[in-house]
Amino acid sequence: MRVLGIDPSSQATGYGIIEFEQSRYRVLAYGSIKPPRRSGLAEKLRLIKTGVDLLIEKHDPAEVAIENPFYAQNIKTALTLGQVRGAVLVSVAGRGRPLFEYSPLEIKKAVTGYGRAEKSQVATMIRALLEIADEEIEEDASDALACAFCHINTRLYQKNIEDSKA
Amino acid sequence: MRVLGIDPSSQATGYGIIEFEQSRYRVLAYGSIKPPRRSGLAEKLRLIKTGVDLLIEKHDPAEVAIENPFYAQNIKTALTLGQVRGAVLVSVAGRGRPLFEYSPLEIKKAVTGYGRAEKSQVATMIRALLEIADEEIEEDASDALACAFCHINTRLYQKNIEDSKA
Repeated sequence: MRVLGIDPSSQATGYGIIEFEQSRYRVLAYGSIKPPRRSGLAEKLRLIKTGVDLLIEKHDPAEVAIENPFYAQNIKTALTLGQVRGAVLVSVAGRGRPLFEYSPLEIKKAVTGYGRAEKSQVATMIRALLEIADEEIEEDASDALACAFCHINTRLYQKNIEDSKA
Repeated sequence: MRVLGIDPSSQATGYGIIEFEQSRYRVLAYGSIKPPRRSGLAEKLRLIKTGVDLLIEKHDPAEVAIENPFYAQNIKTALTLGQVRGAVLVSVAGRGRPLFEYSPLEIKKAVTGYGRAEKSQVATMIRALLEIADEEIEEDASDALACAFCHINTRLYQKNIEDSKA
């Protein structure tokens, strides 16, 4: 099972690709898409869409997981975040990958066991769980990996339930 | 001068294409892009992006004008609206068309002469100005035409200033 996790934000769009096989997690790639600051709005969004296109082409994830914000600081932030999400989702649907959304609470709970964990705790836990040596991993990237991790765990949980019924 | 105006909303994305030549406005097309309700979110956004792609291919507008909302009812609405804007802007940048944004106030002022005009006044005025016989024209479409009209007027105003300087 190979999953692309995405954490869209107004500044940078974090991504992380995790493969789960034979009970082991393997991180294939992580980072963030940051369009040049001086690009116009539409061009920035186009670059984000193209960036996600390239990630899907290169790593061929079966499914995509994205954080679903139920919260934004204000209307302006929500509009900006929505625009980035729009660009990402156009790519995901264009490449025909199923999309799964998780709330921040679900993601935090999957990674730390606690839905109200601090952001730094999530980063520390995800590095430990995925055996990432890089101490300088950006928050956008670790948030994206956490989202992919949450999706894989949800899948495993569903599979366990199905297996126990069979 | 041929301009595509777009009015994105959570329900439907209105569009209108106006050509201005020899001091006359000509409406080439108007309507709205409405993805099927039962489509998933990402697929809906992909259909909006593809819809705008097709409009640009078919009518070849030189420039695109879009309403820039400084206001949304709440965070959820702002996120949804942002997503639709993101899908539209990915198309506009992908087709290399310059994008221009106008506030609702600027659009209302261009069409009715009054920034705080009612929505119905804008619709009535735009039908009169563009000689649209169709009384059943949808609000999304007439808002999109109003946005394109506002952009053409801004361009004409700029040209007048340049001409008077020359």
